[in-house]
Amino acid sequence: MSIDNICVVGMGLIGGSFSSALKKAGYAGKITGVVRDNAKGNQAVERGVVDEATTDVAKAVANTDLVLLSVPMLSMREQLEKMAPVLQSHTIVTDAGSVKQPFIDDARATLPYLNRVVPGHPIAGKEKSGLDAVDSSLYQEHRILLTPLPETDEDAVTSVAQLWELAGGIVESLSPEHHDDALAATSHLPHVLAFAMVDMLASRQEMKEMFRYSAGGFRDFTRIASGDSVMWRDICLTNQAAVGQAIEEFEAHLAAIKQAIAAGDADTIETVFRRAREAREEHLVIK
Amino acid sequence: MSIDNICVVGMGLIGGSFSSALKKAGYAGKITGVVRDNAKGNQAVERGVVDEATTDVAKAVANTDLVLLSVPMLSMREQLEKMAPVLQSHTIVTDAGSVKQPFIDDARATLPYLNRVVPGHPIAGKEKSGLDAVDSSLYQEHRILLTPLPETDEDAVTSVAQLWELAGGIVESLSPEHHDDALAATSHLPHVLAFAMVDMLASRQEMKEMFRYSAGGFRDFTRIASGDSVMWRDICLTNQAAVGQAIEEFEAHLAAIKQAIAAGDADTIETVFRRAREAREEHLVIK
Repeated sequence: MSIDNICVVGMGLIGGSFSSALKKAGYAGKITGVVRDNAKGNQAVERGVVDEATTDVAKAVANTDLVLLSVPMLSMREQLEKMAPVLQSHTIVTDAGSVKQPFIDDARATLPYLNRVVPGHPIAGKEKSGLDAVDSSLYQEHRILLTPLPETDEDAVTSVAQLWELAGGIVESLSPEHHDDALAATSHLPHVLAFAMVDMLASRQEMKEMFRYSAGGFRDFTRIASGDSVMWRDICLTNQAAVGQAIEEFEAHLAAIKQAIAAGDADTIETVFRRAREAREEHLVIK
Repeated sequence: MSIDNICVVGMGLIGGSFSSALKKAGYAGKITGVVRDNAKGNQAVERGVVDEATTDVAKAVANTDLVLLSVPMLSMREQLEKMAPVLQSHTIVTDAGSVKQPFIDDARATLPYLNRVVPGHPIAGKEKSGLDAVDSSLYQEHRILLTPLPETDEDAVTSVAQLWELAGGIVESLSPEHHDDALAATSHLPHVLAFAMVDMLASRQEMKEMFRYSAGGFRDFTRIASGDSVMWRDICLTNQAAVGQAIEEFEAHLAAIKQAIAAGDADTIETVFRRAREAREEHLVIK
């Protein structure tokens, strides 16, 4: 099936960069952006991020071949409900949500054609958000994880994968449970830790001094705490169990180091630090 | 007093960059590097990091106006013991250790002229270490914290401050207790968290996959876990109490977020995340 019309719901960093990357790569079809207000829509068109923009999601998706939903996790349901009555049976619905099971639950509860649903998650992001952060090279060499349903048509998965590859990404498929568990550890937990770390410094009486005495390492370590607070709130709430489990797993590792420090156990401390350093050096793909 | 001769003990990132920055800034005196082996000494001289190099610390410090000790925390004592018998009464002894009280204890236990001791700590670093990491601009706009003793001569503090300013740094003085407590929160704790985070991923069965599914945010977040494991072990052991306290303070903040996530308390989660984001944006000097 040829995808001649794409509708991107949400013109933030993720949706805007998807559209922008496709256009830069020479995608010949039409891309329509669904935005919250006309001013933003005009901006997206002026900057060449999309071909057209509208605030009317139902109108936009009624005549499209593929919809990418890139809105905060807890706004997905509302958009799906608006789309459901007008979707054509061939239209592919994919998303860019950071947690997959809740999107699948929402899709099952609202959409008429589950065989056209291809849940997805591009593992790419920046601390900046919004149209100003749009970057046509955001997905270059980044992994795009798809978690198809048992019902999903193979051609729908292929179409979504081909578009992400055109946008520069490397596509992999896995189960939603596996995705949500892995991302809780590799992404959601680090964000929670960074937010907790900055909040701890901010709660100290000598807060300004605390930030003055921090250097580049701290800046890098806490950069992800500049992420959108609503988006990360939604991720924590929709991936509640896996994030909670990852926090507890982390707490156990931290407690072991704390105990080794309290006991003056030089060997254990050095072993853990060296093991971490070596694992990071050896396995981290994007250094 | 004019500082015509400087002796830098330890030719790693910190000591080498100090020397390199001074030479680049036009320092007219002679700088001698004390190294562990001749090969490294030759390298340091060939690269213009120092004017001369030697493995004999006693010989090097006997005729110098100022000594900068930049060796791991737990190697300080041994170097001070070697220096003590030959130090002249006018020679200033400063250091670059990340924890100040233990250096002061070592200095009190070994050195003959405490009025010439100026404990110091440049808040600058990189994940890389060794002579290859030397960078003459490392200290530009970075804070250098000095924690003089009650006995320290004012002219000794001034001399050390002037050299660091020549190297590009911004000098501040504070008490060693205050320093060790603040740095436990702003530097030592983030490193412990990054090591614990990477160690947790590395301990998962699907370790390689974990690292593959991590993106730029995780890379930045854990970059400091590539720091030298011996150096960070020593910091944790020599600042044991303050680091332990900072870990516990962090654990309480993390537990509060964990509880809010488990309870589905959207308001609390968003408030903490937003507060952290705003505090970082407002107060972090080096963004």
